[in-house]
Amino acid sequence: MIVETNTVRFDSITLDSGAELAPVDVAYETYGQLNAARTNAILIEHAFSGDAHAAGVSPETGKPGWWDNMIGPGKAFDTNRYYVICSNVLGGCRGTTGPASINPATGCPYAMSFPVITIGDMVRLQRMLVDWMGIPKLLSVSGGSMGGMQALEWAVACPDRVVSAIPIATTARHSAQQIAFNEVGRQAIMADPDWNGGDYYGKQPPGRGLAVARMIGHITYMSDDSMREKFGRRLRGKENFGYDFDVDFEVESYLRYRGSQFVNRFDANSYLYITKAMDYFDLTAGRGSLGAAFEKVLARVLAISFTSDWLYPSYQSQELVRALRTRNCDVAYVELPSNYGHDAFLVDVAEQTDLVRGFLANTFEKIQ
Amino acid sequence: MIVETNTVRFDSITLDSGAELAPVDVAYETYGQLNAARTNAILIEHAFSGDAHAAGVSPETGKPGWWDNMIGPGKAFDTNRYYVICSNVLGGCRGTTGPASINPATGCPYAMSFPVITIGDMVRLQRMLVDWMGIPKLLSVSGGSMGGMQALEWAVACPDRVVSAIPIATTARHSAQQIAFNEVGRQAIMADPDWNGGDYYGKQPPGRGLAVARMIGHITYMSDDSMREKFGRRLRGKENFGYDFDVDFEVESYLRYRGSQFVNRFDANSYLYITKAMDYFDLTAGRGSLGAAFEKVLARVLAISFTSDWLYPSYQSQELVRALRTRNCDVAYVELPSNYGHDAFLVDVAEQTDLVRGFLANTFEKIQ
Repeated sequence: MIVETNTVRFDSITLDSGAELAPVDVAYETYGQLNAARTNAILIEHAFSGDAHAAGVSPETGKPGWWDNMIGPGKAFDTNRYYVICSNVLGGCRGTTGPASINPATGCPYAMSFPVITIGDMVRLQRMLVDWMGIPKLLSVSGGSMGGMQALEWAVACPDRVVSAIPIATTARHSAQQIAFNEVGRQAIMADPDWNGGDYYGKQPPGRGLAVARMIGHITYMSDDSMREKFGRRLRGKENFGYDFDVDFEVESYLRYRGSQFVNRFDANSYLYITKAMDYFDLTAGRGSLGAAFEKVLARVLAISFTSDWLYPSYQSQELVRALRTRNCDVAYVELPSNYGHDAFLVDVAEQTDLVRGFLANTFEKIQ
Repeated sequence: MIVETNTVRFDSITLDSGAELAPVDVAYETYGQLNAARTNAILIEHAFSGDAHAAGVSPETGKPGWWDNMIGPGKAFDTNRYYVICSNVLGGCRGTTGPASINPATGCPYAMSFPVITIGDMVRLQRMLVDWMGIPKLLSVSGGSMGGMQALEWAVACPDRVVSAIPIATTARHSAQQIAFNEVGRQAIMADPDWNGGDYYGKQPPGRGLAVARMIGHITYMSDDSMREKFGRRLRGKENFGYDFDVDFEVESYLRYRGSQFVNRFDANSYLYITKAMDYFDLTAGRGSLGAAFEKVLARVLAISFTSDWLYPSYQSQELVRALRTRNCDVAYVELPSNYGHDAFLVDVAEQTDLVRGFLANTFEKIQ
């Protein structure tokens, strides 16, 4: 598999808020080769805490990409056939411009002077990247969770630029409960005195608050069942309760570990900005209805959700599908059985692979 | 309705951990009158953040009790017929001995030197109270959530002292997910530098951490549906997004408000100790199975759960009911339809009232 890792700098981008960001960097990776007709490009969009490293093994960290089980030779997104692109989102902290980036006007990190961004802004920047790559039309846009929001935004905002979209475990707009979980994460970060109004670069970052935010996230990514299977009530390295506030249960140990690890790879201010973008996302806003939002959609759509995903429940995907059908869009929907909760799109990929492979092959055939 | 508000001090209590606590205070309230035969006493047990003030209007705060819609003349727990008792739990912060209480050995608050307690310890102290009141047998023990755990513990630990039990929206043992939510709350508190190893009395309490913990709690007490109905995506006092990190959505405002209010009435260390007691609760521990745990139960049981309660899902009540049936216990179970999530036992009380009223009348008749 041919892998390219790159960063491209654009002069500026104008945001939904009206603010301008200049310059703006985009970190991206590509897998496979663009064909001569430039018709086999697929844009993969990452979820909240993901990055551009979607597939292969990173020479830097030695770690496989976050969707390596889906992207590669012979896999769902088959790099023998398709040219797969993945970029870090605007507001991120893994190469693309975000709150930790240096503001050229001050020479210091933006921190909270970074403008609030939207899913629309993320897609606008991706479009600049795709334009720069000289790709007139994407064979597909796909991602799970926040990645699915971006896929939907592409289909709505750039109908003539996407042949198909595969939104997975996602929604057309965050519910009150989804906003609530994000807000608690933000409050946990901002409650940490080390957050210091966002001005912690070069100092102690708000690691305790960020760890708490991440622990909440992990609970919502799993299901009651998958937590029972993975941890149950098993104690951690002891036969009896400690009768103190050290770790008693395996699940406590897991959450503390995942929380503390996250601090090493994620910027707390990016947490604030990206969750805000998700909460703002609402395809119906200013359009009256989801059907109206999908008025101009030309892409074929394959929507996937998972039975045990209670963070992005199936009814949200079904809402999408119904609205697309009212506009006579070519839409297929599958609810896959899985115990893995929201994490299913990342880990429980056997059936998902078959679905995506078939859908892409069929889509690719249609445009030949 | 005759109301009594009182605190009684006992010399000491020996705990499940082996520790001894001396002396120990219990704050309690009673509603109605004990009959001459002493057969009409009902013990009500509060949930995590409740207190002894279950009914009537507090002369101190002017606020109604936490289950005032269920307890009173003509209500489910009819104080014209029954003598209703409610005490603050061991480890609490509303009159009963807890981590904020003065340790007589040091003259300072116990803080983290307070021994870790269990649901069994809470019930042991309630039994001391009931003994002291001269009540040989309780007509019923009832409560929701952690109150339901205590009701179950009474039926198992003191089979000859309870005629009936009404556990509501509860479980025989916390699942990994339930432990996980509690653990994140504890970590939020302990991450607050003001927590200071629990030693914050007379200083700034860990209000930010406690507020975050409470926000998480509120999300789990509601349902996706009830949050949609109550908040949806409505903005708070604005027509458009603020593009900043002030409150945008109603649900954010609600959570921030409830979090900040909680700090005024609850002790952060009590949060740690009481959630730990819930996590330790496991009726099967050391007994092999739930059926074995219920081997000696004599009480009639009415178990209630709610369709939209995802924190204490119906399957947990059904597990109780199946195990009680294997022991030929007299058990009735009703799953009530409600959109209110776990909060339903506190707010959606019309059908619950009918069920409890009928069950108590029938139970009272049987012992005449």
